[in-house]
Amino acid sequence: MTDNLYTLSEIADKRFSHGEDIPQNIIDGIRKIVAEGGFIGMAQINPIAGNIEYNAKKIAKYIKYACKIGLDMVVFPELVLMGYPIEDTIDRHPVIVDENIKWLKGLAKITVGTTALVGFVEPRKKDAEGKKYYNSVAILKDGKIEGIVRKSLLPNYSEFNDYRYIEPSPVVGVQPAETLGKFDKDSVKEGSKLFEKYGISICEDCWNNKEFFDKHLYEKDPIEELACEKPEIFINCSASPTRAKKEQLKHNMLSFIANKYKTPIVYVNQVGAIDNSSFDGSSRVFNSDGELIARAKSFEEQFLIVNPSKNIGKIYPLTKGLDKSLTEQKVFTLEYESDLERTYKTIIQGIRDYFKKCGFKRAVLGLSGGLDSTVCAVLLADAIGKENVFGISMPSKITSNESRSDAEELAHNLGINFTEASIKPMVDTTTECLDKLFETVAEKWDGRYKTPFTPDNIQARSRAMFLWGISNEFASCIPIATSDKSELYMGYATINGDMSGGFAPIADVPKTKLFAFARWMNANREVKNAIPEAIILKKPGAELAIDPKTGKPLIAEDALMPYEFLDEIIWRVENKNEGYQDLIKTEFLYEKHNPISIEQKTEWIDKFFRRMSTALYKWSILPPSVIVESRSINKYDYRQPITSSKINYKGVEDSYISSILKED
Amino acid sequence: MTDNLYTLSEIADKRFSHGEDIPQNIIDGIRKIVAEGGFIGMAQINPIAGNIEYNAKKIAKYIKYACKIGLDMVVFPELVLMGYPIEDTIDRHPVIVDENIKWLKGLAKITVGTTALVGFVEPRKKDAEGKKYYNSVAILKDGKIEGIVRKSLLPNYSEFNDYRYIEPSPVVGVQPAETLGKFDKDSVKEGSKLFEKYGISICEDCWNNKEFFDKHLYEKDPIEELACEKPEIFINCSASPTRAKKEQLKHNMLSFIANKYKTPIVYVNQVGAIDNSSFDGSSRVFNSDGELIARAKSFEEQFLIVNPSKNIGKIYPLTKGLDKSLTEQKVFTLEYESDLERTYKTIIQGIRDYFKKCGFKRAVLGLSGGLDSTVCAVLLADAIGKENVFGISMPSKITSNESRSDAEELAHNLGINFTEASIKPMVDTTTECLDKLFETVAEKWDGRYKTPFTPDNIQARSRAMFLWGISNEFASCIPIATSDKSELYMGYATINGDMSGGFAPIADVPKTKLFAFARWMNANREVKNAIPEAIILKKPGAELAIDPKTGKPLIAEDALMPYEFLDEIIWRVENKNEGYQDLIKTEFLYEKHNPISIEQKTEWIDKFFRRMSTALYKWSILPPSVIVESRSINKYDYRQPITSSKINYKGVEDSYISSILKED
Repeated sequence: MTDNLYTLSEIADKRFSHGEDIPQNIIDGIRKIVAEGGFIGMAQINPIAGNIEYNAKKIAKYIKYACKIGLDMVVFPELVLMGYPIEDTIDRHPVIVDENIKWLKGLAKITVGTTALVGFVEPRKKDAEGKKYYNSVAILKDGKIEGIVRKSLLPNYSEFNDYRYIEPSPVVGVQPAETLGKFDKDSVKEGSKLFEKYGISICEDCWNNKEFFDKHLYEKDPIEELACEKPEIFINCSASPTRAKKEQLKHNMLSFIANKYKTPIVYVNQVGAIDNSSFDGSSRVFNSDGELIARAKSFEEQFLIVNPSKNIGKIYPLTKGLDKSLTEQKVFTLEYESDLERTYKTIIQGIRDYFKKCGFKRAVLGLSGGLDSTVCAVLLADAIGKENVFGISMPSKITSNESRSDAEELAHNLGINFTEASIKPMVDTTTECLDKLFETVAEKWDGRYKTPFTPDNIQARSRAMFLWGISNEFASCIPIATSDKSELYMGYATINGDMSGGFAPIADVPKTKLFAFARWMNANREVKNAIPEAIILKKPGAELAIDPKTGKPLIAEDALMPYEFLDEIIWRVENKNEGYQDLIKTEFLYEKHNPISIEQKTEWIDKFFRRMSTALYKWSILPPSVIVESRSINKYDYRQPITSSKINYKGVEDSYISSILKED
Repeated sequence: MTDNLYTLSEIADKRFSHGEDIPQNIIDGIRKIVAEGGFIGMAQINPIAGNIEYNAKKIAKYIKYACKIGLDMVVFPELVLMGYPIEDTIDRHPVIVDENIKWLKGLAKITVGTTALVGFVEPRKKDAEGKKYYNSVAILKDGKIEGIVRKSLLPNYSEFNDYRYIEPSPVVGVQPAETLGKFDKDSVKEGSKLFEKYGISICEDCWNNKEFFDKHLYEKDPIEELACEKPEIFINCSASPTRAKKEQLKHNMLSFIANKYKTPIVYVNQVGAIDNSSFDGSSRVFNSDGELIARAKSFEEQFLIVNPSKNIGKIYPLTKGLDKSLTEQKVFTLEYESDLERTYKTIIQGIRDYFKKCGFKRAVLGLSGGLDSTVCAVLLADAIGKENVFGISMPSKITSNESRSDAEELAHNLGINFTEASIKPMVDTTTECLDKLFETVAEKWDGRYKTPFTPDNIQARSRAMFLWGISNEFASCIPIATSDKSELYMGYATINGDMSGGFAPIADVPKTKLFAFARWMNANREVKNAIPEAIILKKPGAELAIDPKTGKPLIAEDALMPYEFLDEIIWRVENKNEGYQDLIKTEFLYEKHNPISIEQKTEWIDKFFRRMSTALYKWSILPPSVIVESRSINKYDYRQPITSSKINYKGVEDSYISSILKED
């Protein structure tokens, strides 16, 4: 029966996602299986933030389908009517909160036979103490709103900022529909916390089990409270973005809860990207023994039918990398293989949704023949279609013939549009104009650098001038910023140059991972080996300046430090919270095969902190990018005052403090 | 006696702020007056975020001085050791939290005779439920930490984000020193909440009076709790930035509290700017009848001695505009006069502190002869010194001779450095290169615009190329982004052009206010009429394109809408939370003397919302800027997903919803 259900479901799904009618015999087939009761549809959908009509239409389509096939219930992700995160939009445009209530009532009317759980932003009672809104789920049934569940635990870390506008619910579980829009502490109705046999919660509400976690962010455990009333099924509506370390934790945690309370849990997650956050979906069900019995696809919309009480479900494969184990993430390694499919899908979804949701169609980027722009080109071709990508090789006098031919070969292999445009005339004219200007300025100001970066930057900015020019001249086209994470940490990117663009696809991917990523794409894409081997083999360098010692273009690692070393610092700072003194004491992977002096090591670590501190400004103007790793420099994820750039990252001795404070 | 105290204090203050020794006879004079007891020093200081040593040295200087003159107590602002806001810095660099504890202990040792209240970031007990830190004040006395007060109410709106890392204190008032770094709910010691006769609280803790405010953000009122124990004096350590509407509210609220509980309140505020937030200081004391008896200067560091119980204090004048009444802010007006001194000082402090705290010395900006760059030039000359400012006139073929001579005259009047550098060669070369490239792209792509903005943008970007070039070539110099608030709302600014820079001084000042501001500066600066009248009189226009109808440069208002109308929309959206439908119904000031059709009005309001939605990306890459008005588009103050640009700001009818949801 199960096989039959999923065969039919997949046929239906395919029709459904193309907006086609599903043949009546398929509907009837599913209906027959589902008729025995206990079946739930997990509607893992991809909303657009603030676009209520778009979201409501999509929700309606799934509700009607669920009603048509006779499911007991259809469950949507957290805040599905609004999209998550919605941030300050609800404060600046309160009209969309009113609208989401109107559409919610409309959705209630079309919910017949099946119960629907729909997330929305709920205004609170006027003049109630606290924030203006609740993060709520409405229970829609037989044309009406039957009850409301409100989120109790509000995450306020990383990209999450719930507490800014959302009031924590004073009570767990379901409350009467009459409280809609006017709920407050004094309106709490005692009575069952459950809706029928279901214990319903919202996202973070299930992330505070006191046995499972060592560290608790909140006092309350909503699941524990629900469990006291012995629900037959837990349901959690979620919007949980992918992060390098999260899936394994989530899996273990949900399994633990189901097993602990001997109650199955149905977890429905948002899919799709909203700006910098990419949600992986992978909605799932654990049975009352904590065993995984169903899991929806990762990074795709899907409608998955399950029966938690009868162990009926289908487990679609998790995108590789999502399952990366917690133990293997405890040490730094250059073996990125296990995380590359997740990285690929996270970024592809991030690009695709950003373009689609903003209404862009095409991208233009510089192809230098180097690794960063190469990886960006492949990702763009896959995300928005090769015909929508234009790669421009923009050689300068420093650019080698190899770089030019590598770029062309790449474009050819990818099938993207390609042309070459020399920046030489612009660089020459600009240099001439600037040299004259500098002479004048130098008459008034000292402090002219002996070896400035000006010539390097003129090249990078001339290239950006080309790319933004095309973006201005052709409709629906944005230029791409190709900076990678390692170089952004070091501020090794030119303002208004390579770090400028409408979107930055690899801003959260470190350089050593990019090498592995390029190889992975060569092996795993339909067209194999699109990336010329020469590009992967060459040492990264911006080809912006000549090394006076060698007469050859400067290699980035000479200006910075070995990428392997740099990336381990980044990994340790982000994943282990290690500071300067910890890093000095740590043995680096790099050191295992490249013995270095402590002076050399200290110099690199110093350079890292020094350069990172002066990169804060650059991070603040970084274009939208996809968050990929467990922590990032994305400005919606990490904020540090630019004026704090002079912090002492080394710390001082107590005796130094005494001596300083005693001075007069 | 009072007069004598303030005469002596001012002499001491002047020496103090220059780092000179204060003559012994002055010290003795103050000491004699203060000896009778009850005197408190309000140390209104300007910290650097995260620079513990810098802050601690400054605090030590004030503590020593307070001890030397024999004050009962010296009070510092909230989080003074760390600077406020510190944001994610404490998570990424936990070393600075350890350091602030070490320095705090050092400061305790030098506190002898006088009690010092010093704000710091306090780590919580390891594995305690909730966030990692408290926002605390240490009571230092006789070489030891005597007790700790922790903040209970955590603001999480506008630029505030306390709740991200800070746990609300479970208890109001003072707790024993032994709890330092290991405090939690279970360590709460019952007993007096007061320290000696003082009821001590931190910033937001005093902003929840249930009688004074109609709307309460929190349940608890810490002041009410302290009041139950009948303190003789309330003390509040604060870090409260200036906002258009805040001072009057703050004054009334503090006065209300003092009078309600018949207890004087000493309110010590941070001064100085940290990135985008500018703090005005204006620390003050209200006596037990709620009368203001002392107020420190605005926008300046100061050490003010007061005796709250004996009504001894000095009231320094408030910067004009800070006192703007709440009633006059209820309607939109072009009478900006009353807010201009505050605007000036807010921005001057913002520029000065950003430069100083980041280590920049010099600024370069384009002088177009237009209002925006003119106002920026004046502000920079006043903030960092005329010799540190370089104004570059960068004419194109569209630039009028008047604009060129106006720019030169302005520079001459200001005494800043000035030169002219034609962008013509760059524009010509770039245009030629781009035209060729566009032909190639057009072979593959359709959608080439008939009247693109490309030529306009080439000019703006060529200018930015000059400015960033100088910044790269000369030490400690950053270019200035001159965009104003009205134009940023409309996205009327060029990426990598005029909106690009290291700092954006007037990004939160609307255009109509800038006109008034220019006149105000002409009347109030030491050098009168530095801004040529012609600059104020001319219609704003970017001089980037020719109007085909008139053959003259396009006027910005033709491309957008009248600034007076635009600025009223902005004002209403920001101050009244009005949406599209409200705006349509409102009678605009502009309409009183320019009758317009409803079609025209609707067109402008539509244009506003449409353009604003597509400006979200530009706002996300806006350089650091000073928040001036009560709300802003500054990204640390307002965040909306860029992908939410398609929200329906008009709303729909219920019948529309039914019809859409019924469709199949």
